[in-house]
Amino acid sequence: MAEKKFPLSQERLEEVIKDHPTPFHLYDEKGIRENIRRLKKAFAWAPEFREHFAVKATPNPRIVQILAEEGAGTDCSSLPELLISKAAGVTGEKIMLTSNDTPADEFQKAIELGAIINLDDLSHLDYLEKNAGLPSCLSFRFNPGNLIEGNDIIGRPTEAKYGLPHDQLLEGYKRAKEKGVKRFGLHTMVISNELRSEGLIYTAELMFKLAVEIKEKLGIALEFVNLGGGIGIPYRPEEEPVNLEEVGQGIKALYEKYMIPSGLGHAAIAMESGRAMTGPSGWLVSTVLHEKKTYKDYIGLDSCMSNLMRPALYGAYHHITVVGKEKAHPDHLYDITGSLCENNDKFAIDRRLPEIAIGDRIIIHDTGAHGHAMGFNYNGKLWSAELLLKEDGSIELIRRAQTIDDYFATLRYPGSLL
Amino acid sequence: MAEKKFPLSQERLEEVIKDHPTPFHLYDEKGIRENIRRLKKAFAWAPEFREHFAVKATPNPRIVQILAEEGAGTDCSSLPELLISKAAGVTGEKIMLTSNDTPADEFQKAIELGAIINLDDLSHLDYLEKNAGLPSCLSFRFNPGNLIEGNDIIGRPTEAKYGLPHDQLLEGYKRAKEKGVKRFGLHTMVISNELRSEGLIYTAELMFKLAVEIKEKLGIALEFVNLGGGIGIPYRPEEEPVNLEEVGQGIKALYEKYMIPSGLGHAAIAMESGRAMTGPSGWLVSTVLHEKKTYKDYIGLDSCMSNLMRPALYGAYHHITVVGKEKAHPDHLYDITGSLCENNDKFAIDRRLPEIAIGDRIIIHDTGAHGHAMGFNYNGKLWSAELLLKEDGSIELIRRAQTIDDYFATLRYPGSLL
Repeated sequence: MAEKKFPLSQERLEEVIKDHPTPFHLYDEKGIRENIRRLKKAFAWAPEFREHFAVKATPNPRIVQILAEEGAGTDCSSLPELLISKAAGVTGEKIMLTSNDTPADEFQKAIELGAIINLDDLSHLDYLEKNAGLPSCLSFRFNPGNLIEGNDIIGRPTEAKYGLPHDQLLEGYKRAKEKGVKRFGLHTMVISNELRSEGLIYTAELMFKLAVEIKEKLGIALEFVNLGGGIGIPYRPEEEPVNLEEVGQGIKALYEKYMIPSGLGHAAIAMESGRAMTGPSGWLVSTVLHEKKTYKDYIGLDSCMSNLMRPALYGAYHHITVVGKEKAHPDHLYDITGSLCENNDKFAIDRRLPEIAIGDRIIIHDTGAHGHAMGFNYNGKLWSAELLLKEDGSIELIRRAQTIDDYFATLRYPGSLL
Repeated sequence: MAEKKFPLSQERLEEVIKDHPTPFHLYDEKGIRENIRRLKKAFAWAPEFREHFAVKATPNPRIVQILAEEGAGTDCSSLPELLISKAAGVTGEKIMLTSNDTPADEFQKAIELGAIINLDDLSHLDYLEKNAGLPSCLSFRFNPGNLIEGNDIIGRPTEAKYGLPHDQLLEGYKRAKEKGVKRFGLHTMVISNELRSEGLIYTAELMFKLAVEIKEKLGIALEFVNLGGGIGIPYRPEEEPVNLEEVGQGIKALYEKYMIPSGLGHAAIAMESGRAMTGPSGWLVSTVLHEKKTYKDYIGLDSCMSNLMRPALYGAYHHITVVGKEKAHPDHLYDITGSLCENNDKFAIDRRLPEIAIGDRIIIHDTGAHGHAMGFNYNGKLWSAELLLKEDGSIELIRRAQTIDDYFATLRYPGSLL
């Protein structure tokens, strides 16, 4: 069992809480930098490696800025995410807009920023040209259909709304070339939160073969192949992280087998990792407000599913530790709950933990990605603050806590009751 | 098959859209007033009937105000919901705070407003007294354990975090009485979105028996019995609405059997209906942005699960009609999707509909409750506006659309990048 770490001592945490009451999300700058460096190292063999950080995972400009300092760009799925990229200093082809049912204003902003545009459907080509003009570098999202099985999070490709099937994809490049586009890339995103190397390597094989086919059939030498995201993280202590070195070497062998012999040895490898960059370097810190013993033993936190939706939404496991009791015997069985009027508002069900007291600080691990980002305001519950533990050990507020006034903002208009 | 209605003609809708671009939520004042009048009529036999509208269903002060004009109070689960009640003119014991892992400031505001407080746990009694003082009228939430089966939405009572089991409940009243509280009520909430009369009637029987037991054992004559919410609505056209008259008469017979002979014939019947009050009188109005034909035929709307989470979250059915094609033959099979980068962002899967064209207006029915309220901002997607169709036929904006600036509000602090 790998020990799940939290980067602050109990004493230091209490100091931080004096300035920033719980609940809050904490991110570790050092950890995030190490995560992206590890990924880049695994692909150091490639003529060029591009990481487009999936902004949706942690849509905070400071986090995006840290990753940009390490060379990352962004993968955006909306206009606000394009603006977050810009605020973090990421512009031009460092940005890739991976569209899906995209409105015109989003395409327009992407064109304005000089982003790479990744089209989700054949019909989007005319829509893009008409509404925003064509970009310098265009990509299409491949949906491999029955060639890939899919999983619970991403679904089966044949039932996924994303991407172009093989024949439409080729038609897309052909049409775009006829319209005068000269530079192209290829993209897919078919796995999610995958811990096994084989799945990631198999995706690369599929994509390299397709790149070769595009070259042979259409005479298009792709500038990059974007393998998407999907690198999982070990949420459970007994799980092992992805062996990135093995993934990198596996993909290198395929690159040498398919790409180089076909004259595609210049093509960059791109990825859009989100979870693997920030997930393990973020924690939700809460305080125990209530203990309730009825048919079960419930620990009630000062946070709720508004702060972290994954357990309620997907039944996802997040490891939990009690500050100061990391070594204590886990001889109690608890449901760890939030305060929402939804019975599934539970961070953990039947979890073995040491005896918990009111006022204890509870650390929920691996919340750096798809944590704060997914929070809703149901029941009038508010978003928590986000804090950054900087490399020099200081704490920086990188998102203030939401206030009731923020929540009421859209209810304030001329003549409103509030 | 009951026809699913939308209260605006195609022509009138297009006029409205000129001022208020899609997507938006539309509510029908007349329908909401009819919904509560029907409920009150079913309980006209009771010495007093109280509807505490569950604010979480539609947390908009104007909607709460309309219900208040019909005599309703509110059921609140958070501090912002207490403030919405106040803004709508609902104060004092018209408000019931149904707590659950409640923080001190919420209890304090409820006490300040003179609300009825409904405790979720025995331990909350001391917490309430210490942090906010005791209210004039106190209630406890009963968890019947194995006496009720539960369902998918609300869960099995023995695994639900809510309420006090039988013995703790009696202990709660005893202790509160010793602390000097003089006025009491009883509450439960064990079913959700239930269409059958029996479930609602069975809950009443359980509660009346308990009220009698409390009288006999503790000498407490409850002022009200709150049967909770749970009145379902027919989301599918082939479903029938709850027969409220039958429910009311069934509960009347039990009231006469248990309550009156025990000297409890003064006790008010209370409910906290949310869904049944606003659900069928709300619609999400969207426009078709894209059509995509790959492995399936996808219609992409200008809305997404941020506007309506129920299909993605629960796999819930919402009826869909295409404006101007209500009578057309449903000879096409579509997935109706939103623009979120989540494959489950689909309003409908394999739905039979008439042929749809880009630009068509799509009506998603029965979104008046737990619709806008549950929206998140994942992927930087923004909340839509809420409009009210008033009884005089005019349209009133009752919530403005969220802007990117609203979404960025918590990212703006001294020294921020935005």
